[in-house]
Amino acid sequence: MTHLLGQTAQNYLKQLAECSETETGVTRFPFTPEHRRANALLTAWMEEAGLHVHMDDAGTLIGRYEAGENTRTLLMGSHQDSVKQGGAYDGIMGIVLPILALQALNRQGKILPYSVEVLAFGDEEGVRFPTALVGPRALAGTLDESVIDRKDKHGQSLRAALSDFGLEPEKIGQLKRNSEDIIGFVETHIEQGPVLEHEGLPLGVVSAICGIERHQLTFTGQAAHAGTVPIHLRKDALTAAAAVTLEAEKLAIKLPDLLATVGQLDVTPNVPNAVPGSVSMTLELRSPVDEVREKAGDMLQAYAKETAQLRGLACEINRTYGQSATVCDGNLQLAIASAIGGLEVPVFTLPSGATHDASAMADLTPVAMLFVRCKKGISHNPAEFASDEDMGLAIEALMRLLSDLQP
Amino acid sequence: MTHLLGQTAQNYLKQLAECSETETGVTRFPFTPEHRRANALLTAWMEEAGLHVHMDDAGTLIGRYEAGENTRTLLMGSHQDSVKQGGAYDGIMGIVLPILALQALNRQGKILPYSVEVLAFGDEEGVRFPTALVGPRALAGTLDESVIDRKDKHGQSLRAALSDFGLEPEKIGQLKRNSEDIIGFVETHIEQGPVLEHEGLPLGVVSAICGIERHQLTFTGQAAHAGTVPIHLRKDALTAAAAVTLEAEKLAIKLPDLLATVGQLDVTPNVPNAVPGSVSMTLELRSPVDEVREKAGDMLQAYAKETAQLRGLACEINRTYGQSATVCDGNLQLAIASAIGGLEVPVFTLPSGATHDASAMADLTPVAMLFVRCKKGISHNPAEFASDEDMGLAIEALMRLLSDLQP
Repeated sequence: MTHLLGQTAQNYLKQLAECSETETGVTRFPFTPEHRRANALLTAWMEEAGLHVHMDDAGTLIGRYEAGENTRTLLMGSHQDSVKQGGAYDGIMGIVLPILALQALNRQGKILPYSVEVLAFGDEEGVRFPTALVGPRALAGTLDESVIDRKDKHGQSLRAALSDFGLEPEKIGQLKRNSEDIIGFVETHIEQGPVLEHEGLPLGVVSAICGIERHQLTFTGQAAHAGTVPIHLRKDALTAAAAVTLEAEKLAIKLPDLLATVGQLDVTPNVPNAVPGSVSMTLELRSPVDEVREKAGDMLQAYAKETAQLRGLACEINRTYGQSATVCDGNLQLAIASAIGGLEVPVFTLPSGATHDASAMADLTPVAMLFVRCKKGISHNPAEFASDEDMGLAIEALMRLLSDLQP
Repeated sequence: MTHLLGQTAQNYLKQLAECSETETGVTRFPFTPEHRRANALLTAWMEEAGLHVHMDDAGTLIGRYEAGENTRTLLMGSHQDSVKQGGAYDGIMGIVLPILALQALNRQGKILPYSVEVLAFGDEEGVRFPTALVGPRALAGTLDESVIDRKDKHGQSLRAALSDFGLEPEKIGQLKRNSEDIIGFVETHIEQGPVLEHEGLPLGVVSAICGIERHQLTFTGQAAHAGTVPIHLRKDALTAAAAVTLEAEKLAIKLPDLLATVGQLDVTPNVPNAVPGSVSMTLELRSPVDEVREKAGDMLQAYAKETAQLRGLACEINRTYGQSATVCDGNLQLAIASAIGGLEVPVFTLPSGATHDASAMADLTPVAMLFVRCKKGISHNPAEFASDEDMGLAIEALMRLLSDLQP
């Protein structure tokens, strides 16, 4: 059965991948004709699974399995949109797999003691409009409604796009759910990294969604002729930047809960025969544990300042961005782990370095995530891939989770 | 007297600085109206010093003190041209100071047992035409005459520019001197670096003009999401490049005869949230000792390859440029040192990291250089400055050198 479910998922995702603006990769932005076509497919499959389907005014397609009045509701799902020329799995796989799990349970005549909703959020990637996560934030009641007037590059506002999609954006404020009615939110997602593949495992339980902070560092020394200034009289901004780059790596090797990345580095004047006068660089830190990330940020800022001082350089450091970690709910993690264990698949827990709809849903309800192995860790790329087998196992795990969950 | 000579030099250089295409800084390219005006001033001062003046067909203005038939000749001088918006001292100071030294000796009625020529080369910087050092190479007989047909950005060839300047470029091949007739070439030049200022000394004897080699390194790893790939699964091209940058600096600190510079470094994709997939960088090495430079080049290439291998990256390294060191003549160095010592100025020897006319003249005759302290090490910049006092001392040193030299 696992194999058949996985094949169906692959087939569904192939059809959805054709709902793309580009031929290469998947380009499906929110509130576009491609989004509409994807929703038509999802609606049909949801209905086939016995779900009642509607779209809320934030553009979230919702398929509801109704267990009866006064039951609490488990939320599942992810986002339908893609980056430009992205993959066929990122987000949308987390909509398809729970639909197929519910479809299978429905065919088995399984009756659940709680309601379930599968949510297909419109916009998580934030590529079209300079905002994202409007769908989950509307449910959590954390949406800054002013973002609805932000415009895409063609000058169309999100408000106009929602209206054109047949929705009433002025009613978004009414979408807020009562957290007492909700059991939790379980998001299934392709890992987007190489860890599960490296471990040889199909599935993973997410422990937390990492917090992120970014620092902008600028070292200012003295540009100089590479031939006439001896090493001890130089104020080389690049060697200082190199020292910080290596220190960040060293710290991330030492602390298993820390990711540290110098991703952007620009040298001035950047010519072969001049000692670099200034270097501007970014330092990004991620950790599932906020204290670890914040401590690391402080340590690396101090190291950068010390390095600059020792080398006679000026150093400007600004923390430009900060976002706390979202810790996944312990009970939901255990429930997912138990479902995976029931399949005789080893249970493996890992943090998510990327942000997900679950990050925003955490303001409403306990969240948890199931990761599916991703070929070579490639994501946001046409080569993104999850196998039939792994998706089949994920569907079975979701079926067990749904069957065993105590509301 | 020193002070008066220095004031005169400063005054002459100020007049020459006005022969500039730009108001900010000095912009005097070869075979331009500014060059012509500068030559007119130099000619007048050379004649005032008792020199016979002519211009050779490579555009070198030559002022000759004639000691008599069958005497050998000492060559002095430097280049008249500047970079775009450069300083008032680079090059041309090395023409003015020997003129003033000869003028002072002439006034004292001093008779030398050898002839002297002060050479004002047209083009050392190579800014106007994609070639340089045509003047000294013509004298040394090392000129590749095909360069005369190279064109400036307006499409005028060097050949046409020479003709317009009243010269006969087809006769350049006849300029080659007989090395047996030449005692040597002594070039006076602003240091263009901070060493003399740092040592608190006005003058320096150049030991050698550094050889240079350049390497182009490209590290190729794997661009990846900064959140989803743990440190131990990354192939980060920037951390590898940072390690090589610091290793080059470490080696240059260890070996006093070595300069090492990573001047250019470009990261791809160069965004805050991606692990750098590739880095392209330059490594420039300079040393007055070719063996030191070559050994360092080999060591750093090996280090880069080892670093790449350890980190699972590909590494492409090409040595893109190589130029041997020019060792200054021992006897001429001693003669300059003795002249400086006679002024009760401490003798300090240092290499030149920059290339000079002397590099090309070394193919003809023994060369030596006298460096003059440069304010804050600034050169190729309107802020370039040498003081009256330091230039006065340099003129006196040249007078002693000329008086004491045994031909």
